[in-house]
Amino acid sequence: MSPRSTQQSEHSTAGAYVHPGEEFTRDTTYIEDRIVRDPEHARVGEGAEAWPVEAGRYRLVAARACPWANRTLIVRRLLGLEDALSVGLPGPVHDARSWTFDLDPDGRDPVLGIERLQEAYFARYPDYPRGITVPAVVEIASGKVVTNDFAQLTEDLAKEWTAFHREGAPDLWPAGLEDEMRQVMRRVYTEVNNGVYRCGFAGSQQAYEKAYERLWAALDWLEERLATRRYLMGEHITEADVRLFTTLVRFDPVYHAHFKCSRNKLTEMPHLWGYARDLFQTPGFGDTVDFQQVKEHYYIVHEDINPSQIVPVGPDLRNWVSAHGREALGGSPFGAGTAPGPVRPGERVDRRHTPLAV
Amino acid sequence: MSPRSTQQSEHSTAGAYVHPGEEFTRDTTYIEDRIVRDPEHARVGEGAEAWPVEAGRYRLVAARACPWANRTLIVRRLLGLEDALSVGLPGPVHDARSWTFDLDPDGRDPVLGIERLQEAYFARYPDYPRGITVPAVVEIASGKVVTNDFAQLTEDLAKEWTAFHREGAPDLWPAGLEDEMRQVMRRVYTEVNNGVYRCGFAGSQQAYEKAYERLWAALDWLEERLATRRYLMGEHITEADVRLFTTLVRFDPVYHAHFKCSRNKLTEMPHLWGYARDLFQTPGFGDTVDFQQVKEHYYIVHEDINPSQIVPVGPDLRNWVSAHGREALGGSPFGAGTAPGPVRPGERVDRRHTPLAV
Repeated sequence: MSPRSTQQSEHSTAGAYVHPGEEFTRDTTYIEDRIVRDPEHARVGEGAEAWPVEAGRYRLVAARACPWANRTLIVRRLLGLEDALSVGLPGPVHDARSWTFDLDPDGRDPVLGIERLQEAYFARYPDYPRGITVPAVVEIASGKVVTNDFAQLTEDLAKEWTAFHREGAPDLWPAGLEDEMRQVMRRVYTEVNNGVYRCGFAGSQQAYEKAYERLWAALDWLEERLATRRYLMGEHITEADVRLFTTLVRFDPVYHAHFKCSRNKLTEMPHLWGYARDLFQTPGFGDTVDFQQVKEHYYIVHEDINPSQIVPVGPDLRNWVSAHGREALGGSPFGAGTAPGPVRPGERVDRRHTPLAV
Repeated sequence: MSPRSTQQSEHSTAGAYVHPGEEFTRDTTYIEDRIVRDPEHARVGEGAEAWPVEAGRYRLVAARACPWANRTLIVRRLLGLEDALSVGLPGPVHDARSWTFDLDPDGRDPVLGIERLQEAYFARYPDYPRGITVPAVVEIASGKVVTNDFAQLTEDLAKEWTAFHREGAPDLWPAGLEDEMRQVMRRVYTEVNNGVYRCGFAGSQQAYEKAYERLWAALDWLEERLATRRYLMGEHITEADVRLFTTLVRFDPVYHAHFKCSRNKLTEMPHLWGYARDLFQTPGFGDTVDFQQVKEHYYIVHEDINPSQIVPVGPDLRNWVSAHGREALGGSPFGAGTAPGPVRPGERVDRRHTPLAV
C-alpha cells in the first residue's frame, strides 16, 4: 500500500492534502460490510460480510465536523434510531493517525473505552492500511469496526433498520423516485460533495480552475432545480437532501474561502440559500450542525492550506435562522410522516460560539 | 538592522509574513524626502531633503497590485499629472528582493532602464536595509529614489504640484475640512488599511481575534457614517476617499478570504458597498484597478498563508458596475471641478480577466 493512499484520505489524517501538479482524487475504498435485516440473503461486495440489525449491538462513531459523518447523524435523528444505535463523537481536530475522543471525559469514548478510533480499526484488521475515517460503525462487544462505507450506511439505516424506526419516520428512499434519486445523488457527489475538495486540494492552478468550473456548473444546475422544487426530489425530504445539505451548510464557513470556492457565497444563490435554511431549520438537520467544530476541523487539520492554523471568526451565521420563504413552493418536509422529537440531552450541540436558536 | 524589518514590509519582499505568537506590526520608516514647490522653505523631517517640483524630472513607480501604490495612481489621474509625472508599473509578483518590471518588454522599465526597483534604492543608498516598497518616486537622470513615503506623497501631489494640475482638478484637501479629514484618515489607516493586514498576518489565534474585532468595529463605524454622507467628508471626493477605496476594492477579492476578514463580504455592507461602487465607477478610481494583478499579488507572494500559490478564480466581480443609487444622497464627486479625461492609451488596465466596462 503506498503511503499516499493513507495521506489522501482527508477525513482521517493530517499532513499533505495538496499534491503538487495533481488533481485531487479521493480514496474510495472502504470496509464494505453491511448491517442488514437478513444477513443470509443480503447482497454484499466480494470479501465483505453481512451483520444482523440489532438494537444496542453497535455504536456509530461520527465526528460532527465531517460532512460524510454528518449525514449519518441527520438520518439517525430523522428515523429515530437514537435508542437502537448509540453515537460516539470524536472531536473536530484529529492528528496524523486517527480521530480521537478528546471531547469525552478522560479522552475516551464512554462505551467503547478507546481513545483513538484507530483502535477499533486495528481490532478488526491489525494492519489496516487506509485512512481511519468517520463515519464508522463499531461492534461494541468486540470493539471491531464493522463498516465505514458512508454511502451504504445511511441507505441501510433507512431500508434495513426499519424495525427500530420511530413512529412517523419519513420515507427517505421513496421507491418510485429511486432511479432519479440515484442520478441526482451521483452528480451531487462527484460535482459538489467531492467537488469542493477537488477545488481545495488541487495541486496546480490548472487543476483548480477545472475543478472550479465543474463545481459552479453543478451549483448553477442545483440553483435552477431548486427554483421550482421545495426539495431536491420534489415535495418531501429524501436522502438526496441530506447529502446535499451537509456540503451546503459548510459552504460559507469553510469551502468558500478555505477551498477557494469563491465565485459566490451560498447566501448569494437565492434558491440554494433558501433551501439550505429551510433544511437547517427543520428538526434533524440544523440541530446536528456544530459550526465551530466544522471550522476548527478544516482550518486546523489542513496545515498545508492554512499553515497558521488560525480559525476564522467569520462569517456571521445568524442569518441561518432567518425566514426562507420556501413554504410558498408547497410540499411538506416529512410527507406522511412527522418531525423528529427534541434532541437527546447528551447529544445537544454546543452553541456557545454560534448562538443560533436551533 | 534586524532581518525582521525587511521581512515584515509586506509590499516589498516574499518570505515570512506571519510571525508566530505576534501581532503584525508594520515597519513605518520611509525615505522621508519631499518634492515641493519651494524647497528652501519646506518642512522636512530630520535628515530628509526637499526636492523641487519639476515636470518630467521624476518617475512614479507604482504597482497596480499594491493598495498603497494604488492611491498614487488615483490621485495622479484625478489631478491630471500624467504629463508632469510619468509612471512605471512593476508586475504583481515580486520576489524576496524587489518589485520587478516583468510586465515591460525585456523586463526593464523603459524610462529608468532598470529590471528591479531595488536598483533605484541602491543608487540612492548602497546599503539600503529596509523593504523595497512601492510607491516610490525616482529621479530619472540620477536613477535614485527620492521618496517612498506614501502618505506624504499623495498630499504633496495635491498641494505642491498645483502648477501642473489639469484644469478642473478637484480639491482633494479642502482647507476647512482638513482637521476632521486627518482624524478620519488616521482611524481608517490604523483600523482598516492596516487593519486587514493585522488580521491576515496575525501570529496567533488571540492576535487574530483581537485584530478581527478592531477591523469590524471600524467597518461598522464607516457603514454608519456613509449611510448619510455620499463621501467620507460629505459632498465631494477627498483624499480620505482615495485612501479608503483602495482597501475596499481589495476586500472581497483578497482580504475577505486570504486575510480571514470574513464576517461579511463588502457586498453585504449596503452603504460601504454602494459607496465603493460609486467611487469605482467614477473616472480615476476603477480605471486604475487591475483585479487580476491584485489577486495574483497576495495569493502568490504570501506563500506562508497560501503555500500552493493558487489564485482563486472568484469572486464574480461583475457587480462592481451595477447601479449603486448613491446619487440620492446628493453631492457631486468633483465639487467645483470636473472629471478626469480618458485613461492614456499606454496606461489602460488589462481587462481580459475581469471584463468590466470601466
